[in-house]
Amino acid sequence: MSKAEVKSLYRNIFVTGFSGSGKTTVGRIAARLLGWEFVDLDEEIEKAAGTTIEQMFARHGEPYFRRLESERLAAALGRDMQVVSTGGGIVVDWRNRRLMERGGTIVCLEARPETLFARVERQAREDTEASARPMLFAADALARIRSLKARRQFAYTHARLIVHTDDLSPEQAAMEVVRGWENISETNETRAAWDSPDLAAVVETSAGDYPVWVGWGIMDTLGERVIQTVGETSTTYIFTDEHVYSLARRAQSSLEIAGIAAHIFIMPAGERHKTLETVELAYDWLSHRRAERGHLVLSVGGGVVGDLAGFVAATYVRGMPFAQAPTSLLAMMDASIGGKVAVDLPRGKNLVGAFYQPRLVLSDVGVLRGLSARQMASGWAEAIKHGLILDEDLLADFDRQRDALLALEPESAAELIRRSVAIKANVVSRDERETLGIRVLLNYGHTIGHAIEAATGYDTYLHGEAVSVGMMGAANIALQKGLLDAESVERQADMLRSFGLPLTCEGVSVDAIEEAMRSDKKVSAGSIRWVLLDGIGNAVTRNDVPPELVRETLEKLAAG
Amino acid sequence: MSKAEVKSLYRNIFVTGFSGSGKTTVGRIAARLLGWEFVDLDEEIEKAAGTTIEQMFARHGEPYFRRLESERLAAALGRDMQVVSTGGGIVVDWRNRRLMERGGTIVCLEARPETLFARVERQAREDTEASARPMLFAADALARIRSLKARRQFAYTHARLIVHTDDLSPEQAAMEVVRGWENISETNETRAAWDSPDLAAVVETSAGDYPVWVGWGIMDTLGERVIQTVGETSTTYIFTDEHVYSLARRAQSSLEIAGIAAHIFIMPAGERHKTLETVELAYDWLSHRRAERGHLVLSVGGGVVGDLAGFVAATYVRGMPFAQAPTSLLAMMDASIGGKVAVDLPRGKNLVGAFYQPRLVLSDVGVLRGLSARQMASGWAEAIKHGLILDEDLLADFDRQRDALLALEPESAAELIRRSVAIKANVVSRDERETLGIRVLLNYGHTIGHAIEAATGYDTYLHGEAVSVGMMGAANIALQKGLLDAESVERQADMLRSFGLPLTCEGVSVDAIEEAMRSDKKVSAGSIRWVLLDGIGNAVTRNDVPPELVRETLEKLAAG
Repeated sequence: MSKAEVKSLYRNIFVTGFSGSGKTTVGRIAARLLGWEFVDLDEEIEKAAGTTIEQMFARHGEPYFRRLESERLAAALGRDMQVVSTGGGIVVDWRNRRLMERGGTIVCLEARPETLFARVERQAREDTEASARPMLFAADALARIRSLKARRQFAYTHARLIVHTDDLSPEQAAMEVVRGWENISETNETRAAWDSPDLAAVVETSAGDYPVWVGWGIMDTLGERVIQTVGETSTTYIFTDEHVYSLARRAQSSLEIAGIAAHIFIMPAGERHKTLETVELAYDWLSHRRAERGHLVLSVGGGVVGDLAGFVAATYVRGMPFAQAPTSLLAMMDASIGGKVAVDLPRGKNLVGAFYQPRLVLSDVGVLRGLSARQMASGWAEAIKHGLILDEDLLADFDRQRDALLALEPESAAELIRRSVAIKANVVSRDERETLGIRVLLNYGHTIGHAIEAATGYDTYLHGEAVSVGMMGAANIALQKGLLDAESVERQADMLRSFGLPLTCEGVSVDAIEEAMRSDKKVSAGSIRWVLLDGIGNAVTRNDVPPELVRETLEKLAAG
Repeated sequence: MSKAEVKSLYRNIFVTGFSGSGKTTVGRIAARLLGWEFVDLDEEIEKAAGTTIEQMFARHGEPYFRRLESERLAAALGRDMQVVSTGGGIVVDWRNRRLMERGGTIVCLEARPETLFARVERQAREDTEASARPMLFAADALARIRSLKARRQFAYTHARLIVHTDDLSPEQAAMEVVRGWENISETNETRAAWDSPDLAAVVETSAGDYPVWVGWGIMDTLGERVIQTVGETSTTYIFTDEHVYSLARRAQSSLEIAGIAAHIFIMPAGERHKTLETVELAYDWLSHRRAERGHLVLSVGGGVVGDLAGFVAATYVRGMPFAQAPTSLLAMMDASIGGKVAVDLPRGKNLVGAFYQPRLVLSDVGVLRGLSARQMASGWAEAIKHGLILDEDLLADFDRQRDALLALEPESAAELIRRSVAIKANVVSRDERETLGIRVLLNYGHTIGHAIEAATGYDTYLHGEAVSVGMMGAANIALQKGLLDAESVERQADMLRSFGLPLTCEGVSVDAIEEAMRSDKKVSAGSIRWVLLDGIGNAVTRNDVPPELVRETLEKLAAG
């Protein structure tokens, strides 16, 4: 694809938002301000179907409408310089989101439910065509808006830009859309260069954006992708361990073909080497080789290698560019994204570290072929967690495609890993430093999970296995607190079991788990912030879980 | 001062900018948009003087006008909710800048010289009162605008908000002013809480803003200021060394009076303990005491303690809040501001570190009483450097107040240290991570200075002494390259000499200095980026300095 073509692909604005957010009115004004074409997707659908949306819903049901909607969206992507106003539900299907992300910039018009209700009501009075909003003709429209909006909220947050329209006139909102687009249109060009069917997400951070690519057999594209993201660099320092050394060699070849010298630092495998001692060896190696600020540190390995290499990159000469090529499913799902880097101290895991974002993450799903069933299951636990906390659709697809995933069928595996990774990337983009109460949701199952790992000396349960048990503990707490129903708990259990994950931790000392929970570094002033499910796909935090309920839950888990 | 009063003080906007930038027109519209009072300072001056500005300049000269201008500015500060348009030259006097910073928000209207020229010319045609712009009636007005603007540019950058007006209508520019003000008005409330005559600067960083206080005897206010900036925290870990332990005890008392538990970690004094070994001891101490993310790390000491404590704060539990109470003049001037934290490796100084911003810096000038003349001189070197690279006025005041400074007379010393510190703070705010070519200017004298330190094993020259010699080296290079005249070189030499600083490094091996320069971590692909003076108060960077000129310069310095 030529550069000009790529760029043009990115000059579209997709206006999303709930019904009543003003997508059509605002989109039309924004198009005029930019001198672009305006496209009303609902109108296009009606034209194509030769009937009104209301009739479509009545006669053929929502799925029919959604199919036409996706078709018309795909058709719109063939053109350039358009403002496309979409229907309120378009973002729910991840394929539509992917299409819009790749074809332009998604702008979401946001408003409080009360505002939306007032607007829709006013329109209904003024405009006889308001009957084209079938979803809102329920008895208690405001309550319905509230609940539908809450369920779609996560999908809406995938927008590049969110404009809060409550206190804005349509003209002001359109100005905001245009301004916002102008602000990000420069970075759009960079993003266009990253575009590929493998692109799972772009993580937005205060230190700049970076792409996460997930694909089958893409390790050999590493060299060119380093040049795309980091730019011309003379030298790369590859960190790896003895188990995945052959993959590091593949990375090295790819870099050298791209004209980048690459040296390999092999650390002994295993968490017990994620120490300051290994870090010092790495510093010594880098200083011996006269590593400079402009050189790259690359991790080729699992979470241990990535954490340590990232910490070295964050601290050597006050920071070197860093890239991750995770080689375990767990690392692809979790450690490689989000910039948490660390090493352990005798007194606790990850006690020394930093937030330090990579410049790219490249996950070659093909390398997972060599992993054991247990290691794979450990990774699936985190992937399933993403569905449980934020995306019920993803969970349903895990269910449907279980066999293909367990067999690591290239296309399905790459696609679902990509979708799950995108959730983590989105969460990190919205709460880079875990200060806004969003990123903490990723800790679902981790409070108990970490404690089980610590209580068993980190050599009995793999991380994902412990998290699986932890998620069952959290589900029990949510059940007892009336947040989750028994059916949902069973659904979670079935899902985890079918991916080969444990649901209990028979024989582990409950006292030891409790003690480990108390010394967790996330504990603030002694109180634990629990992540619980308020329904599948909807995580919340609570710090009012009584110690007795925790004790009782742990006893259940430990009883098996 | 009550909270309400403080807040109201911050609800003023001061519009600054060069003649022709549209201050009056834009200010008037902005006032209307906000529903505030509009004040045209030039008009106020004319009213007070009973004559036109043109006549004032003609009859009494510029100083007379400037005095009246400062008076009227001070008078305006007694009121609230005003947009005040100022004269183009008001920012040159640092006292005016300080008044405006404390009384509201400075907004600078920026435009290219060509735009300014076109506007002034058009106004002159349309408006007979344009004769009120006396400075512009030179023969070649555009060239004059260009040169005057270049000289004032640093003063203009002190604004909180800069609006580029070249392509904006007055209405659009006013909108930008109002929007910008709205965006920062929340943080203004925080800033109001930090306000005090000791406030030297607020450093703006991607991780939030922080105050730098410089005052005589303010160590005992530490506790309350920690609460103002960090908020309620239960525990502080004070890092100090054996030489300044008594000051750490004072800090501890102040914290304990404010209700914050404070523990002291005493490291052995001296750069040779700024190592990973000491860092590990500190980690162990913190983990033993169960330090949490919400606790504070405080450095009470010189640059060594601050660098090490900052690195520990940056990396323990992925980052704890950090505060600096520097106890040497050098640390007040330099290391405590800007977030560079680091420890040394056997192979090089500061090879391991991070950019990690403190939450507050509190410099008690009174504690300098205990320092030796040599240590003080080492600090003055950096202070003088700030004047040399960016602020000729400051340099002139150093000259005038030399005796008071050398005697450490409380008021003068605190004031000039505050002004010099403000320059560093401003530079860091504009280029947090040394990526924009601004912060690098602070390295004036450091390329050779660092190399002299390294070549002499860090035990012959204090840092500021080596930098003083390095600045003389850079001055010689600038002289040879035709950037600096002999008179300016002499002025720099006189200034440094009069503060007890060395100008040469007799007997140091030129080969050793050259070797050390080659292994500096800032070297990129082998080429050195020199910071040179293009006149006093105006630093530039050059990478076209031939090795022979460097060699010749070093030989001169080493010959004594």
